[in-house]
Amino acid sequence: MHDKAYALFEQQQQDRGIDLEQVKQKLKALKIETPSWGYGDSGTRFKVFQQVGVPRNPFEKIDDAAQVHRLTGLCPAVAIHIPWDKVDDYEKLKAHAQAQGLSIGAVNPNLFQDDDYMFGSVTNSIPQIRQKAINHLLECVEIAKVVGSNTISLWFADGSNYPGQVNIRTRKRWILEALAELYQALTPDMRMLIEYKFFEPAFYHTDLADWGMAYDMALKLGEKAQVLVDTGHHAPGTNVEHIVAYLLDEKKLGGFHFNSRKYADDDLIVGTINPYELFLIFYQILDAGQDADPAVRKTAENIAYMIDQSHNIEPKIPAMIRSVLNVQTQYAKALLINFDEVRQAQERQDVLAAEHAVRQAFEQDVTPLLAAVREEMGVPVDPMQAYLDSGYAEKIASRGKGGASW
Amino acid sequence: MHDKAYALFEQQQQDRGIDLEQVKQKLKALKIETPSWGYGDSGTRFKVFQQVGVPRNPFEKIDDAAQVHRLTGLCPAVAIHIPWDKVDDYEKLKAHAQAQGLSIGAVNPNLFQDDDYMFGSVTNSIPQIRQKAINHLLECVEIAKVVGSNTISLWFADGSNYPGQVNIRTRKRWILEALAELYQALTPDMRMLIEYKFFEPAFYHTDLADWGMAYDMALKLGEKAQVLVDTGHHAPGTNVEHIVAYLLDEKKLGGFHFNSRKYADDDLIVGTINPYELFLIFYQILDAGQDADPAVRKTAENIAYMIDQSHNIEPKIPAMIRSVLNVQTQYAKALLINFDEVRQAQERQDVLAAEHAVRQAFEQDVTPLLAAVREEMGVPVDPMQAYLDSGYAEKIASRGKGGASW
Amino acid sequence: MHDKAYALFEQQQQDRGIDLEQVKQKLKALKIETPSWGYGDSGTRFKVFQQVGVPRNPFEKIDDAAQVHRLTGLCPAVAIHIPWDKVDDYEKLKAHAQAQGLSIGAVNPNLFQDDDYMFGSVTNSIPQIRQKAINHLLECVEIAKVVGSNTISLWFADGSNYPGQVNIRTRKRWILEALAELYQALTPDMRMLIEYKFFEPAFYHTDLADWGMAYDMALKLGEKAQVLVDTGHHAPGTNVEHIVAYLLDEKKLGGFHFNSRKYADDDLIVGTINPYELFLIFYQILDAGQDADPAVRKTAENIAYMIDQSHNIEPKIPAMIRSVLNVQTQYAKALLINFDEVRQAQERQDVLAAEHAVRQAFEQDVTPLLAAVREEMGVPVDPMQAYLDSGYAEKIASRGKGGASW
Amino acid sequence: MHDKAYALFEQQQQDRGIDLEQVKQKLKALKIETPSWGYGDSGTRFKVFQQVGVPRNPFEKIDDAAQVHRLTGLCPAVAIHIPWDKVDDYEKLKAHAQAQGLSIGAVNPNLFQDDDYMFGSVTNSIPQIRQKAINHLLECVEIAKVVGSNTISLWFADGSNYPGQVNIRTRKRWILEALAELYQALTPDMRMLIEYKFFEPAFYHTDLADWGMAYDMALKLGEKAQVLVDTGHHAPGTNVEHIVAYLLDEKKLGGFHFNSRKYADDDLIVGTINPYELFLIFYQILDAGQDADPAVRKTAENIAYMIDQSHNIEPKIPAMIRSVLNVQTQYAKALLINFDEVRQAQERQDVLAAEHAVRQAFEQDVTPLLAAVREEMGVPVDPMQAYLDSGYAEKIASRGKGGASW
Repeated sequence: MHDKAYALFEQQQQDRGIDLEQVKQKLKALKIETPSWGYGDSGTRFKVFQQVGVPRNPFEKIDDAAQVHRLTGLCPAVAIHIPWDKVDDYEKLKAHAQAQGLSIGAVNPNLFQDDDYMFGSVTNSIPQIRQKAINHLLECVEIAKVVGSNTISLWFADGSNYPGQVNIRTRKRWILEALAELYQALTPDMRMLIEYKFFEPAFYHTDLADWGMAYDMALKLGEKAQVLVDTGHHAPGTNVEHIVAYLLDEKKLGGFHFNSRKYADDDLIVGTINPYELFLIFYQILDAGQDADPAVRKTAENIAYMIDQSHNIEPKIPAMIRSVLNVQTQYAKALLINFDEVRQAQERQDVLAAEHAVRQAFEQDVTPLLAAVREEMGVPVDPMQAYLDSGYAEKIASRGKGGASW
Repeated sequence: MHDKAYALFEQQQQDRGIDLEQVKQKLKALKIETPSWGYGDSGTRFKVFQQVGVPRNPFEKIDDAAQVHRLTGLCPAVAIHIPWDKVDDYEKLKAHAQAQGLSIGAVNPNLFQDDDYMFGSVTNSIPQIRQKAINHLLECVEIAKVVGSNTISLWFADGSNYPGQVNIRTRKRWILEALAELYQALTPDMRMLIEYKFFEPAFYHTDLADWGMAYDMALKLGEKAQVLVDTGHHAPGTNVEHIVAYLLDEKKLGGFHFNSRKYADDDLIVGTINPYELFLIFYQILDAGQDADPAVRKTAENIAYMIDQSHNIEPKIPAMIRSVLNVQTQYAKALLINFDEVRQAQERQDVLAAEHAVRQAFEQDVTPLLAAVREEMGVPVDPMQAYLDSGYAEKIASRGKGGASW
Repeated sequence: MHDKAYALFEQQQQDRGIDLEQVKQKLKALKIETPSWGYGDSGTRFKVFQQVGVPRNPFEKIDDAAQVHRLTGLCPAVAIHIPWDKVDDYEKLKAHAQAQGLSIGAVNPNLFQDDDYMFGSVTNSIPQIRQKAINHLLECVEIAKVVGSNTISLWFADGSNYPGQVNIRTRKRWILEALAELYQALTPDMRMLIEYKFFEPAFYHTDLADWGMAYDMALKLGEKAQVLVDTGHHAPGTNVEHIVAYLLDEKKLGGFHFNSRKYADDDLIVGTINPYELFLIFYQILDAGQDADPAVRKTAENIAYMIDQSHNIEPKIPAMIRSVLNVQTQYAKALLINFDEVRQAQERQDVLAAEHAVRQAFEQDVTPLLAAVREEMGVPVDPMQAYLDSGYAEKIASRGKGGASW
Repeated sequence: MHDKAYALFEQQQQDRGIDLEQVKQKLKALKIETPSWGYGDSGTRFKVFQQVGVPRNPFEKIDDAAQVHRLTGLCPAVAIHIPWDKVDDYEKLKAHAQAQGLSIGAVNPNLFQDDDYMFGSVTNSIPQIRQKAINHLLECVEIAKVVGSNTISLWFADGSNYPGQVNIRTRKRWILEALAELYQALTPDMRMLIEYKFFEPAFYHTDLADWGMAYDMALKLGEKAQVLVDTGHHAPGTNVEHIVAYLLDEKKLGGFHFNSRKYADDDLIVGTINPYELFLIFYQILDAGQDADPAVRKTAENIAYMIDQSHNIEPKIPAMIRSVLNVQTQYAKALLINFDEVRQAQERQDVLAAEHAVRQAFEQDVTPLLAAVREEMGVPVDPMQAYLDSGYAEKIASRGKGGASW
C-alpha cells in the first residue's frame, strides 16, 4: 500500500515539475531542537496539572528528548534553561546527551523567576540587579562552552504593568548595555538570538515588544546577534511570514520558537490551530533559500528551529512527537511548491494563479513522501504509534508525579 | 483650599445644570465588593512573587478588606472563594466580618483547581466528575446560606485546547444541566451570576465564551439567573458598554468584575489603562437608570459591583484602595453627564454635540466633589495617604511572606 | 492517472472506515449561492479599480452566475440586492435565471446607501426614515414572492461612530420593531436571516454587533427567523466554529456568508487565509448533522451557504469559481472525518488522538474524489481551466469597463 | 467666573509644583497641521455621504483651514495631497494661503488611485509603473519647493491580498530603491516622513506594515528620513506610546497623523475613543524633551503634528476644530505631569505612586488654563461656539453639495 501510494505520489510530483530527490534530501536534513522544559509539567496561572512520568532532573529530560529523536530522526539537539537545568557537572550532562546521540542546543538564561527580578532584570532600575542579570548571561556563555553549544537564546520578560511605572527610554539603553556585554563574551563560533514578545508577563509595556526592537538591538550589536521569532509572540492578525521574509532579507533571522496560538501566547502544539501559517513561513524561508544573494541563502539555511510550548493537558512526549511531525509535514508541503510557477504567475500579475500555485502545494497529502523518507532514515514510518507501542510511557511511570516544572 | 475648590465646583455644576445633591447621594450609595483573593499573592504562569504581609487565612483577608472599607467607605462586603476560603465554621467567619462592619458578599465556587477538572468540571465527559462539580456548586449555596450571602458568582474555566478535543454541543447541554440544578437550589432571595470569558485557561474553545452564551443560559434558567460582565474577558476591540446596555435592556445584567486590560485578561487595576471605557460603562448604567421601564431601572440599581484583579507586583491593600477609588472617580464623572443635553443633541442628530456632552463630564475634575462626599461620609479625604499613614502595613508585616495565594 | 489516483484514494478511505458513497452523495448535494454583486466592481474606500467585462445590469450578472454554475455544478441560485438589482419586471429576471438553469436565491435589502440613512435606517431617530426603511424591507418580501425566493437576508449597517452619539437601548428596540414588522409579512415558506457585524461602516457601536444580538432578535421573533454567520464579521481570535455549533444546537443557524479575513472584514476569497477554519466549521455542521435531536439535524441540513466577497483586484468570475471550489474542497475534507474515531478519543479524554482524528481528514488530498464527483455530475474536472479555455472572458470583454459596482 | 477658576487652578498647580508659565509658553507654541483632504467629503467603501458646503477646490480647502486657524490659533499650516490638490499655479496656492496667515505644510504624494497602481506603485513588478511612481515622488519635491514646504509625507498603500501573490523580499528592495531616489532629490532643509500601516487597502501583506519596517528604511536612507506614526495604523493592543518613545530615542520620530480608532483604521476624531492614550503619547514626548541627549530633545521638539481623519458623518470644519482642541487638551494635561515626582517614584520602584503621578495630571480639568492661554493668544475662549456663531457655515452653504472628495 505504501509503495503504491508513493509510486503515485512520485508520478504526481513529477508531473507538477518537482524534483523529489532534492525534496527528500532537504527533509532528511531538517533538524528541530526540543526544549528540556517541554518535558516537564507546565500550566496556566490558574493551575499546573501534574502528570505521571515527568522527568525529575535534567538527565531524565534528556532521556525523553532522546526518545523523541530516536522515533522521529528530527531532534538531535536539546535546548536547556538555566537554572532549571543547573547541574554540578555540565560535562556529565553533555556526555549523557552524547551517549544517546544528542547534543546540547541553545542555552537559555532565565531572568524572570528570581525574586530580584520583580521589576526587571537587565532593565531593573537598581544597578546591582542589572549586574546580577548580566552575570547570569555571562554564566550561560560559560555553560555553553562546556556543553558544546554555540547558541545563547534570550528572552527578556522585562517590562511594566502600568503607564508611568518605568522610564521606557532609560530601560531601552540598559537592555542594550546588557546585550553588548554578552556579545563581547561570545566566542567566534557563537551567536545570540534575541526574542521579542508582544506582552506577558508584563501587561503594559515589554522592553523588547516586537521584531523591530529585537532587530534594532541585533543591528547595533553585530552579525553574531540575530532575531528569534516565537510564532506566538505577536499581536492579533500580524503577518508573521512577512516578518520572516523581512528578517531573512536583512540576514537577521536566527531562529524560531514554534508553537500555535489562537488568542495570546497560548503555547499550543505547533500546526494545530492554523497549519497554513506554518506552511507560509516555510514558503518564505525556501524562497529566500533561492535568493540571488548568497548571504540571504546562508541565513535561510542556518535558521535554528526550536519547539517552545506548554503542554498543559497533553502527555509530554507524545505532544512533542506530534509537534515535530507537524513541523515536518508543513515543511514537506512547502518543499512541493513549484517556485517557477509561482514566479511566472507573479510576473504576469495573475493573482489567482500565483495564490493557487502556492496553496496547491499545501493541499498535497505528504504521507507517502514522509513514509518513504522515514524508511530511508531508518526511523518508524508512524513515530507516534511506535511511541505508543514502545513501552516507554509505562517505563517512566515509575518516576511518579511531581517531576520538574517551570 | 478644599472649600474654595468645592464652592467653585458647585457653581460650575450648577451652571451645567447638574443637581449636585442627587450626585452626592448616589456617590454615598455606591458599594464595591472586594474579593478575598485580591488580598493574597497572585502572579502569572511565569512567577508568583510572594509579598510580605499577605494574609495567611480567610480571617486575615477579612481584616484587610475591613481596612479598605474603613478608609474608603465603599466596600462593605467581601466576596469569598471556595475552597480558598474554606473554614470549619462559617458562622464564625460571618461574625468576624460583622464585627468589623462587613458582610460576606458573593460566594464563588472554584471549579478549576482540582486535579479531576483537567478536562472540565461541569462539562467533563466523565459523569462522576460532573456530579462532583455540581455537588460543589450546591455546597456553595449552603455556605451562602450560612454566611448570609444572596449571590452565587459562577466562572467556569471549562473548555478545550484543540479542535476536535471535545464535543462542543454536548458540553453545552451539560453546562445547562449543572446550572439548572444549581438554580433549583437557590433560595427565593438568591441570585446566580454567570460569568463568561473569551479564553484562558482554555485556548481553543471556552464553554461559555461570550456574553451571548451566558445570556442564553440565564434566559433558559429564569429571572434569578443573570450575567456577570468581567471587563477583561472580551476580544480585542469589543464594545463592552454596548453589551452592558443590551443586558440592561433585557434585565439580565447582574454584576461586574472590574479590572483593566490592554492585551488579554491582564487583570490590572481598574481604570488605569483606559479610564474612559469605565466612564462609558457607567454612562450606560446611569442612562438605563432613567429608563421608562421600571424593570430596567431596577436592574440598573441592583448591579453587584465587584473587583477581580491580580496584583502581581503591587502591594495588595493599596492596590485595592486605588482600584475602588478609580471606580468611584469614574462613577462620579458619569454622574455629571447632563442627560438632557445628550438627549437633545441625539434627537437633532448633532453628532459632535452629543459626543461632547458625554465627554465633557469625563473632563471634569471631581476631586472637590469626592473630598466633600468623603467628609460627609466620615472617611479620610485622601484614603491612600491615610492608609500609608495608618501603620497598618507595618503591623501586618509580622505575617511575613508566604501567605495565601491562588 | 485520475483512475489510478481514485482507486488508491478509495482504498485509503475504506481503510480509514469512510463510506465513500455517502461522501459523494453529500458532495453532489452541496449548493452554494453566489451573490449578484460579486460579479460587479468593488473596492476599498481608497479606490475601486474598474475591470473590463463587468456586467452592466442584473441580467448580465445572472449570465455570469450561470457560467459559474455550468462549470462547477455548485451554484444553482443567485442572491440579489435591492436596489442594486432593481428591474422593472422581476418575472422577467426570474425567467432569465430559469432559462439558464438558475433560481433567484436570497433577497438582500440595501439599507445603507440612501442619503437618508446617514444616521441609521431602521434605527434612525427620525420616525419617517425608520418607516422608509421598513417599507423597503416589505418591498423586498414582495420581490421575493415574485422571483420565487424564500429567503430575506438582512444586514444592517446601522450604528454610531462616537460614544454618546445615539441611545443604544432605544435603537435596540427600534430594530426589533422593524424586524417584527418584516416577520409578519413573511409567507409561511419564507425565512429571514439576520446578519451581525463587529464593526464597519459604524466605528463605535453597531446595532447588531455580534451573534448574541442577532440570536436574541431571532429568538424574540420566532422560528422563521435565524442567524446568518458572515465569516468575516468577528473580533480577532473569535472561535467562529464554536458560534456555529451553539447556533446549530439552538436551531437558529440559518446561513453563511463565506469569505476570508486576516484583519478586519477583508472580504477575501474564502479558504485562502486560514483554510483550516473553514474545514472546522464544516466539522461542526456535519457533527450536528448526526445529532440525536432531529431538529438539530434538520437545521444543519437547511443551512443556506452563500458567498459574500469583494474581489478588488481579481477577475470576478474566476474569483467566484475559486471561491466555490475552495468551499467544496474543505467540505469534502470534513466529510472524510471518521466521527466514530473522534468520539471514541473524546470519550477516553485522549486529547492528542481526538485532535489528530479531526486534522487527519484535513490532511487528505481530495483531488481524486472531487474529480470523480465532477465526472459523475457532468461538469469539468478542472472548472477553473475549463473557464479559462471557454472563451467566456473574451466574449464579455465587449461589455467594456464601467459595469455595475456597489 | 473664568478668573476665579483660573486663580484656583494656578494655586492648585503651584501646590503640585508645576511651573505654569512654562506650561503656557509650550501651549502657545503648539502647532497642528490640518489636511486639505479633511475638509472634503469622505466615507467608507459602503457609501460616501455628500455634505453641503464642502470646498470645491484647493483654494476653498485653504479657506476652511484658515477659518480653523483663526478660531484656534493652533493650525498655521495645511498639508496638501497631490493630485487631489493639483493646481496650475502653485505660487498662487501658496500666496492664497499666506494671505490668510497660513503656510503649506507637508506635501503628500498619492500612489494609490491611479489605475496603474492596482498591483502596487513603487513595488509594482512592472518597471514602467515603478518609474511612474518615482516620478510622481520627484514631482512632489518640486511642488514642495514652490509652495515652500520642507516635508514630504509618504504613505504607500502597496501590498498584496493573498499569500503567494507577490515576492515580498523583491518588493522590499524596490521600495528602498524608490525611497533612495526621493531622498537624493530632497533639498538640505527638507525631510521625508515614512508612514507605515498594519493593513488596508492591502489585506494580506502591506509592504511597510509596521514601525520596524519604516524605521529600517529611514535608517538606511539617512538623517533626513524619519518615521511618521499614524495613531490608527497598528494591530489591536499595540502600545503606541512605546513605539513613540523608541523612535524618539533613536532620533527617528518625525511626525504624527492623529486620529482615533476602536477597531481598524477607523479615522475617527482624535481623542474621542481613548483620550488617555493620546495623553500618554504626549507624556513620552515631553519626557524625551528633557532627555540628557540634546539630539533626543531636538527630535522631540521637531515633531510634525498632523491630523489625518475621515469625517464621514460629521460636518467637516467643526470636526476639525474639535480634533485640534482635543489634541490641545491632552497636550495641556501632559504638561501638568510633575516629572520629578514620577522619576522619584520610579526610582524607589513604587508602582502605585508612579502610575498615580502620571494619571493625576490626566485627571486635571484644564479648561481654565486653556481659557487663559486662548485669551493671551487672542483667539476665542470657546472656539467651537465661536465657529457656530460665526456664520461661516451658512456662508459656505452656497457651495452646495458635491465638493471635493477622496
